[in-house]
Formats: sequence, structure tokens, C-alpha cells
Amino acid sequence: MNKFEKAQQILQDKNYDAWLIIGYEGNDINSPFMLGVNAPSLHCIYVSANGDHYVIAVEMEANMIREALKKKGVKAKVSHFANAKEFFSLFSSIITESNIAINYGENLFTPESSAYADFLPAGQFFTLKKLLPKTEFVSAAPIIYGLRSVKSKEEQKDLRNTCNATIEILETIPDIVQLGMTENEIKAEIEYRYLKIGKPLFPTIVGTGAHSADPHHNTSNKKIEPGPLLIDTGLQIDEMGSDITWTFWVGNKPSEDFVDAYNALYESKKVANNYYTDGTPSILPAQKCREYLAEKGIDHKRLFIHGLGHALGFVAHDVGPRISVGTSGDSILKENMVHTNEPGLYWIGEWGIRLEDDIIIGKEKCEQVTHVPKDPITI
Amino acid sequence: MNKFEKAQQILQDKNYDAWLIIGYEGNDINSPFMLGVNAPSLHCIYVSANGDHYVIAVEMEANMIREALKKKGVKAKVSHFANAKEFFSLFSSIITESNIAINYGENLFTPESSAYADFLPAGQFFTLKKLLPKTEFVSAAPIIYGLRSVKSKEEQKDLRNTCNATIEILETIPDIVQLGMTENEIKAEIEYRYLKIGKPLFPTIVGTGAHSADPHHNTSNKKIEPGPLLIDTGLQIDEMGSDITWTFWVGNKPSEDFVDAYNALYESKKVANNYYTDGTPSILPAQKCREYLAEKGIDHKRLFIHGLGHALGFVAHDVGPRISVGTSGDSILKENMVHTNEPGLYWIGEWGIRLEDDIIIGKEKCEQVTHVPKDPITI
Repeated sequence: MNKFEKAQQILQDKNYDAWLIIGYEGNDINSPFMLGVNAPSLHCIYVSANGDHYVIAVEMEANMIREALKKKGVKAKVSHFANAKEFFSLFSSIITESNIAINYGENLFTPESSAYADFLPAGQFFTLKKLLPKTEFVSAAPIIYGLRSVKSKEEQKDLRNTCNATIEILETIPDIVQLGMTENEIKAEIEYRYLKIGKPLFPTIVGTGAHSADPHHNTSNKKIEPGPLLIDTGLQIDEMGSDITWTFWVGNKPSEDFVDAYNALYESKKVANNYYTDGTPSILPAQKCREYLAEKGIDHKRLFIHGLGHALGFVAHDVGPRISVGTSGDSILKENMVHTNEPGLYWIGEWGIRLEDDIIIGKEKCEQVTHVPKDPITI
Repeated sequence: MNKFEKAQQILQDKNYDAWLIIGYEGNDINSPFMLGVNAPSLHCIYVSANGDHYVIAVEMEANMIREALKKKGVKAKVSHFANAKEFFSLFSSIITESNIAINYGENLFTPESSAYADFLPAGQFFTLKKLLPKTEFVSAAPIIYGLRSVKSKEEQKDLRNTCNATIEILETIPDIVQLGMTENEIKAEIEYRYLKIGKPLFPTIVGTGAHSADPHHNTSNKKIEPGPLLIDTGLQIDEMGSDITWTFWVGNKPSEDFVDAYNALYESKKVANNYYTDGTPSILPAQKCREYLAEKGIDHKRLFIHGLGHALGFVAHDVGPRISVGTSGDSILKENMVHTNEPGLYWIGEWGIRLEDDIIIGKEKCEQVTHVPKDPITI
């Protein structure tokens, strides 16, 4: 079943007439997810409960969209427009249903939040309301959750493949890194290898020294210095992406603090893995990880300043429960969801460390798709 | 004057109390434009007409944002939160003004469209309305236009620098490309060179054979074949980005059709350049370009399936008038705006060609910052 057919099934189950995605300048990741191609110009994807699917695109992107859909075995009519007048004429001839799901989130900042569906910009929403005054709009959150949270067998295969390729590249890092190189130069070496076979899932984080203490550090022109070197990186070959963090030690012998932190995080990650299982409240792995760190005398409340994991898939922060003590704990992990397991410790302005692996939630036991080295790698 | 001070001045001129940007997963490009750093987690930027600027960020991004603002000489208080409750408490203690500009677009698909300001997702908008029921929200379009459409002397210098670096890299392409390489491998070679000093402004388009006829082709694993090779690419070192298209010929001798199209586009681009001047209706360069192509007997209506140019800056499609016969012609070019000049011809399913340079609009005469080779380069 292709994605349009899956979405159609959810539409029928939910009793919605159609799902409308409006794509513009990469604003909505559900567009490339459905089309199989990035179309930066204005376009509409109209998935209909009755199977009459449409795409409205600019002339210069129509051919590329047709080819991409053909490749995925999707039957959808692609019509193109040359100007605003033609766009409206196509739009109003196609979009006539009375109950349309669109991509906005509900109950933001609450445990029931569907922020993962919040893409349609407000101005576009106002325009839609004006164009289709009689249409009832509902949030497409259930469709997006249904399509993207639990991964199919093919997606899991794709994930394993991209994870293996990422690890092969990560293993070459000790041969690449030299004192005097910049963070950007290391990022370039990693992403160069990605780009030949796919693309970076997100801009690779390379943090030397104090930069390793900023979990979302923007890789810079700073030269690599002795001490921790944090690399957080992901590769996307087909659809699924990897998201892996290794923290290296640059210099002769890692400091005792570094080794202690490394070992504690490595073990805490292993402890948490036991709870990446079907039916488990998503807060539990994070609680168990922190309990272990507390037992080891680590002030995790001060030092571990982010969640333990997030859903992973077509994007780095994919659709699915967050694994964090900052959540209510109401969300439940499900078999074949994919999540990261990434405990970290940060002494802001000094140094930081994070170890991150990718995990498929299992019935009784998870599948650990990536494996951070057991002992710190010295460069 | 830094960007916060510039924005503050516009707020005062417009009689708005504040400008609120809500950033989340890279949804709003105005966030990195203002902060000088990419902050993927939820954050608010609050620029106040009275100069009391705030940023509310997650704990793990607060330090990095503080450092980035310090570098830019921005005085703003950065507060951080650990969970939703803390976020709301900070939000309601800071955001008390009655007249707040937020990033949504108005009059979409009309000549007065401010689609360039349309970033805030609808769900976030509904949440804001609920949180601040007495606040009057206005579109931040005038602030965004004021900050980003006309480029400062520093931005122009930055643009020239990044354009020169891009051209140096493009000039090495004939030494890089070999038959048997894939499009992705060529993209990797180009972006590898970018990543060492900056980053790609957008994913490089490498189109061989029929792929050159899809103007927004997604670079693939197809092997380079004899014939046209279209490369559309941009580099961002600091803030401004380049956006350049060269079309090469792979093989011994370019076909007559290719040379004719190349020469016609090269000359049409030169003709259009005469109208990249202050006070000119933005439709005019596009009309003049097409008039020239028509004179040469080229069926531009069928083959030239996109606009002639777009504003260029912090992103590839920046804030400013489109240069296209598909627009109403009411927008006026202004001195120190930066635009592309990129005529192209496409025989869908067969081959395509585009030549693209970057231009600073001048008082009497434009400044051509990049220079496509006068004659086709053969590889």
C-alpha cells in the first residue's frame, strides 16, 4: 500500500472527505513525505477519501512531481498553473468537499498536543477560510500520526541500512580529525561522504571544547582543541534518517571526569533500553535512565538538560511520543516506533558529553540499531 | 545599528508595541536572521518598541543564544525554561503589550501579498489568541520587509565575498566532473568545498540530460551523460547567500541547439540587466528579456517556464519583488535590493538550460556581482 492509499484509509476511518496539504518553500515536511520529491514552489496535495487524488503545482515542477509519484506507484492527477488566476481556477474545480483535514496542531503545550501537525501558516489558513467558506476544516493530526509514527517493515529496513552507512562513516573519523582542523572542516568531511549516497538529515553538530556543552551547537570555524569532541549527525539515504552522537576525546589520555561520565552515560543508556518496549509509558525510560545516573552520584537535574529521546524517521524530530521526564507520561510507546536514546551531561561553558543510539521499539525487547562505542575513542 | 535596533525603529515608526517571533523546528527563518544562530527547540523572540528585548528559550539552547547575541552586539535578556509550566510563566511575565506584530501574511495570491511574512503556524496563532485575548495582533510584514528587502553596505560586501568564493568553486567543476560520476557525487564535491567555509544556501541542483529540463530537479544518483549539465548552487558564508546557475556541455562539441540557446539566454540576460535599476517596475526586466528572446525566434511562452528573477539574501528566495511577467507589475525595484537574473529554456523530458547571475539594483545602473561564462564550458 502506498502512502496515498494509507492516507485514504485513515480518511475513510475518520469520516473525513479529504486531506489538503499546501506546500510552499519547504514549510511542510508532509509534502516531500507524500510526493517523494521536494517541490519548493507553491503547490497543493489533495488526498481524497474516494481515491481521486490531485496535485496542483507550478508548471516548472509538474513534470518532476509526476515522475516522483509514478516511481512510488501513486495514482494522482497532477495539474499545473502558470499564474494566480489559473491556480484559483484549478483549486476551485478540484476542492469541493465539505470536510477537509488540514495541517494545524491542537492543544499546544498540553499533554494532548498535536504540535507535530502544525505546519499551515496562519495567513494560508485565513485564505483557505475565505476561499471555502462552507467547508469544515479539521486537524490532520490523526492522519499524520497514522502515517508516520509507527514504522513499516520497509521503513525499518531502510533505517537499518542508513544507520549502518552512518556508522561506517563515523568509524573513519579518527583518521580524519587532526588538531588544527576546524569544526566546519570535520563537518565537511562527514557530510561529503553522506552527499555521495544521500544527504545529511540535519546539519551535523561538531563541538570542540566548551562547544560540546551546547547540545544544539551550530558548527563553527573554531579549531579542534584537546579534550571532548562531540559529533551529532544523521544520514538520509532513502526516506528514514539516522541520528547518532559519539563523543570522542582528542589528546593522549581522556580525563578521569570524562571517562566516568562516558561510562555512566553508556550504562544509563543500557538501563533505559530495557523500557523501549510496546505499551510502556514514554516517560519511563527517561525516569529509569535518571535513576541510574542519580545512583552513580551524578547531579542529572543540573547537568542533563534535555529529554532522553525523540521519535526518529523522515525527519530527525519525527512524529511520536517524546521520552522525557518533562512530559506528563501519558503517551505510550508502540511496537515499531523508532526513537533515539541519548543521555548527555553538560557543564555549560566548560565541556559536555552525549551518547546517542537509535532504537526500534519491540514487543518484549527493543532492537538497538546503532551502537555507540563501549569505551571512549581517543583521537 | 544591529537588527534588534533596526526592528525597534520600525516598531516605533509603525506605532506597534512589539514584534513576537515564535521559533520551532526551523519554521521561521526570521529567528536565525535575528539571533545569528539556529535554535531548533521552541523559543520566542520579543523585540520591544521600548528597547526591552527578550528571548525565551529552552535550557539547552539558552547559552548558545546568549553567545550569538553578544557577538552581534544585541542587548536582549535571554530567559530559559525547563517545562511547559515555566514557559507559560515566563511568557506571561514578559509579553504584556497590547499591540503585537506577528509573522503572518496578508492578501495572499494578490499583488499586495505579504506571503513573505507567513510563518506562524495556524495552531500557534490560535494558542496566542487564547493566551492573550486582549492583545491586538498585526502582521509583521512591514518589519520583515524593512529589515530584509534592501541590503546594507555590509550585506553587499558579504554578498560579493560569498559570490566570489562560489565562482572560484564553480570554476573547478570541469576538473571534477567525469563521465560515470553521479549527479549526487558532483553535488558532494561542490558542497564539500562550501562546508569547509560556510554552508549550501539550498541543496545544489545537478541535472544531467533530461533532468536539466526540470528547473527544480532534486539531484539524484543518475550517472552523468553526454549533453547539457545544469548546476544551480549557492553558498552562505556569513549571512548573505549566492545563487548561481551554470549550464555546461558534457562531450566533445556542444550541439548547435545548445549553443544557440546559450547565446540567446546570455544576451537576453544582458538586455534585462539594463532594467535592474532603482524605480523600475519589477515586471520590466522580465518583459525586456522575453522581448529579446521573441526577436530571436524563441518560443519563450512555451519554453521559459519560470520567472526571470527573485530577491536574494539570507535565503535563496528572499523578501522583495519577484521579477516575472506572471506578476501585476506594481512592485518597484529599489536601490540596493539584490536579485537574480536567470532566464532558462526547457524542453521537458529532453533537455534544459539556465544561466543565472546575482545583481545589486543600482541608482542608474546595476552591479553584476557574478558572471556566467560568455561561452559554454565543455567538459
